[in-house]
Amino acid sequence: MDLESTTEATQTNGNGEIESFFNLAPPLRNRNGGARRVVCVTSGGTTVPLEQRCVRYIDNFSSGHRGATSTEYFVKAGYAVIFLHRRGTFQPFCRSLPDDPLLECFESIDGSNIKVQDSYSEAVERAIAEHHSAVKKGFLLKLPFTTIFEYLQMLRMIALSTSNLGPNAMFYLAAAVSDFYVPWQSMAEHKIQSASGPLNMQLAQVPKMLPVLRQEWAPKAFLISFKLETDSKILLKKATAALEKYKMDMVVANELLTRKEEVVVVTSSENITVRRDKNEGVDDVEDPLIQLLVGRHSTHINTNSSYVQ
Amino acid sequence: MDLESTTEATQTNGNGEIESFFNLAPPLRNRNGGARRVVCVTSGGTTVPLEQRCVRYIDNFSSGHRGATSTEYFVKAGYAVIFLHRRGTFQPFCRSLPDDPLLECFESIDGSNIKVQDSYSEAVERAIAEHHSAVKKGFLLKLPFTTIFEYLQMLRMIALSTSNLGPNAMFYLAAAVSDFYVPWQSMAEHKIQSASGPLNMQLAQVPKMLPVLRQEWAPKAFLISFKLETDSKILLKKATAALEKYKMDMVVANELLTRKEEVVVVTSSENITVRRDKNEGVDDVEDPLIQLLVGRHSTHINTNSSYVQ
Repeated sequence: MDLESTTEATQTNGNGEIESFFNLAPPLRNRNGGARRVVCVTSGGTTVPLEQRCVRYIDNFSSGHRGATSTEYFVKAGYAVIFLHRRGTFQPFCRSLPDDPLLECFESIDGSNIKVQDSYSEAVERAIAEHHSAVKKGFLLKLPFTTIFEYLQMLRMIALSTSNLGPNAMFYLAAAVSDFYVPWQSMAEHKIQSASGPLNMQLAQVPKMLPVLRQEWAPKAFLISFKLETDSKILLKKATAALEKYKMDMVVANELLTRKEEVVVVTSSENITVRRDKNEGVDDVEDPLIQLLVGRHSTHINTNSSYVQ
Repeated sequence: MDLESTTEATQTNGNGEIESFFNLAPPLRNRNGGARRVVCVTSGGTTVPLEQRCVRYIDNFSSGHRGATSTEYFVKAGYAVIFLHRRGTFQPFCRSLPDDPLLECFESIDGSNIKVQDSYSEAVERAIAEHHSAVKKGFLLKLPFTTIFEYLQMLRMIALSTSNLGPNAMFYLAAAVSDFYVPWQSMAEHKIQSASGPLNMQLAQVPKMLPVLRQEWAPKAFLISFKLETDSKILLKKATAALEKYKMDMVVANELLTRKEEVVVVTSSENITVRRDKNEGVDDVEDPLIQLLVGRHSTHINTNSSYVQ
């Protein structure tokens, strides 16, 4: 692995933690007799700096809700999850809590002792217990990123580190990755000055990473990418094009305004609509979505059975 | 006040809370015999959407550390602080805690009861106690924003609501406000497509708000703006130009790389360098900075004495 080009952050947070995660993980054979399944869930948006000494950047809207929620269901389904997430976005097991849970859920008694407010006590206790249990048992490894540069280098590192799992590895690429960026060499060194009128910017396209992931980094893994559009008329067409062009196993198509209610899973043979169904007590669209993906992943593993130990 | 153009978020979070803050605040005469001092601290960066159904936006780098830290020292100095901050940035009294204090500082006992880890217990208890005490006593009102549109409308509302305080109001404008934006009418409705090669964007300048704040919204208030540059050679010149052009009372000049160690306060008669001094047990550059500003604010109040009740 080429470590020379990785950032300091990646080396510190990424490589050592990934290695020790795999070293400490239970042996690959699990209770079902098959090899252990690992999913890399990417979550949140990446940033693109506009200046080398960065004051301004372009960001992609993404709360990380999809990735955090999906991570919970993957853990419940017995997967070991590598949660590659944008710093500050939603965390698994914490989505029912307010933005700033420490200040909003606790109260101070006599100016020193603290206590969870009654209305939050169940949610707070469950969040901490379930999160710590998942980490402790080796079902959850959290790795943070901010820029597109960090994101892509860490993704490559994870893909190469899990390539020995063959078809048992899944990539669930829910992060909102920048399409455009300013190449480092052509970036202004100092803060762009505002005195001289309107600003004209030319942004280059970020090289497409999905073909490299498919062909070089993780050729046998089960790959799921996401397509988000605001215009429903072009969504399915673009999702299908991405499936074929990048040889994904599935593309999850979602529209900005309805993405928490419904998604369409596009495969080479069918389009499957997955809906949240309040009446049947299903809280999240991610619950039936992950059930569907886990089943299809089993099929993927069986049809690549030379890799099952 | 023109409420028609305010966003729903501003109406809900802003107006009602500001009104009730002032209604519940103690009478203006305080223990020093003078009128109560109020400071509006702005903190964190503003975003500029690039699409109406926003997927991408330009953001300004700002952790909100300066604003959160300064708020603590203003509260200690007896000010009522309106903390107008970017969602998700540093909060007053919480800066010694990790990014995600709920998950990192607590542990779960027997799968349900939770407890602060010993190493964090003092910091967590102090943060919650001091924060809640400041809010309860009417010394701290927190109002969040995300976009430049929310920021400017809330700032106007605060300035108009505090104009009856005359020189006793201070504005400490530490937020990193966008210089460039895409006007709403010329914004793409849908997500910008990446298929057609590099992206050319023309960004317009955000109208300068400081002259309006000075001349119309808060003509008698003590106004402090900030100038951040990465190039030290142009910093003081630009700070001085802003002081004169926008008729600020002071401009705090800071350079990106040294901003936690040293700032230069530029006034019409002098440039005052303020340094963090570890040897004298001074933890933050904000400690001596706020001391300096509080003294100058007293002078400002005295020279505008017709407003002191």
